[in-house]
Amino acid sequence: MTDFNDKQLDILQAAEKLFAEEGFDGASIRNIAREANVNIAMISYYFGSKEKLLEALIIHRTSGMKMQLENIFNENLSPADKVDRLIDLYISRINKNKCMYQIVHFELSTKKRIMDMKAFIDIKLQNVEAFKRIIQEGQAQGVFRKDINIFLIPTTIVGILVHFQMNRMFMETALQLESDDAFEAYIKNELTAHIKQTIKALLLHEN
Amino acid sequence: MTDFNDKQLDILQAAEKLFAEEGFDGASIRNIAREANVNIAMISYYFGSKEKLLEALIIHRTSGMKMQLENIFNENLSPADKVDRLIDLYISRINKNKCMYQIVHFELSTKKRIMDMKAFIDIKLQNVEAFKRIIQEGQAQGVFRKDINIFLIPTTIVGILVHFQMNRMFMETALQLESDDAFEAYIKNELTAHIKQTIKALLLHEN
Repeated sequence: MTDFNDKQLDILQAAEKLFAEEGFDGASIRNIAREANVNIAMISYYFGSKEKLLEALIIHRTSGMKMQLENIFNENLSPADKVDRLIDLYISRINKNKCMYQIVHFELSTKKRIMDMKAFIDIKLQNVEAFKRIIQEGQAQGVFRKDINIFLIPTTIVGILVHFQMNRMFMETALQLESDDAFEAYIKNELTAHIKQTIKALLLHEN
Repeated sequence: MTDFNDKQLDILQAAEKLFAEEGFDGASIRNIAREANVNIAMISYYFGSKEKLLEALIIHRTSGMKMQLENIFNENLSPADKVDRLIDLYISRINKNKCMYQIVHFELSTKKRIMDMKAFIDIKLQNVEAFKRIIQEGQAQGVFRKDINIFLIPTTIVGILVHFQMNRMFMETALQLESDDAFEAYIKNELTAHIKQTIKALLLHEN
């Protein structure tokens, strides 16, 4: 995990807020500095360009996951219970980092790439490896089936949740969720239960 | 399904191409007219504003699904085989409508909403109902389990695929897919197999 000092963390938080609210192009370094209560020169000194600031933000939010995955691996739990914990971890991270996901999705859905994705990809690859170890442990114990594509399981967990959030207006109408609380409660209860049931059905299924 | 004449279809196709390439704001009615080989007045006559053109495009691409779902329902296949067909249908539609999904995702990831989502939501609700009938038939036959959230199954299928496509750069690196063909082949083979295995594990799982 990257270590940032308090001022740097303030800047990252302000950048995240303004990028999400105004888009990458819309947010100015001047406004980020005002929001973070620092001067413009300090942002340049710590991060360089606005592009580098976005990169630092995304890497800051992505790192930390590996350690949390390793913590789950080391807990004294059954393989199926570890999978429940994994899913809770993914969902809570995505919920906490909603602004960031908004930015990354925006970034991914436009053709011009603003940031250098290399560092981001490297961290995600390490996270996949930490994830794989947990599933492989369950396979070694004979609890999980082996004819599955482990790499695609995080894609499955995150894909379901992100797609649900991205189609919020449709979901609210279809499920008659009439407030922000009702929407969040549905994710916390029904959607999370569905993801856990789906992933465990895949892992534990016996033919 | 909405009926459009050939000229209208030309305009929709041109609009789809330019919206995807240049974004909604970037694409001008003038350029769409040039691409479609019609004059500007014809676009106004048929569709009104650029906003209405986007709406018509999205509705055009979303409708048609209901009939295809009903065709699967009426086929003489086992419930599990119908699910395979369903998944093939969703994947092929998303692949065919890639430009459209790019636009919708862009639209959904920006805070200002360009289009009126009501007509789009209505069509999607009808599609969900047609989908539900297929799963409920399998439940009535005792083949599929009943303690599942049917509504979330299309979200699961589409979410996995869309998330995979949205994270293309990461997937290409992680899976060493070094060409467009390799990426498409992975979706057609491994990813599709994973989605089918996952959904059938959920539906057929016995405790």
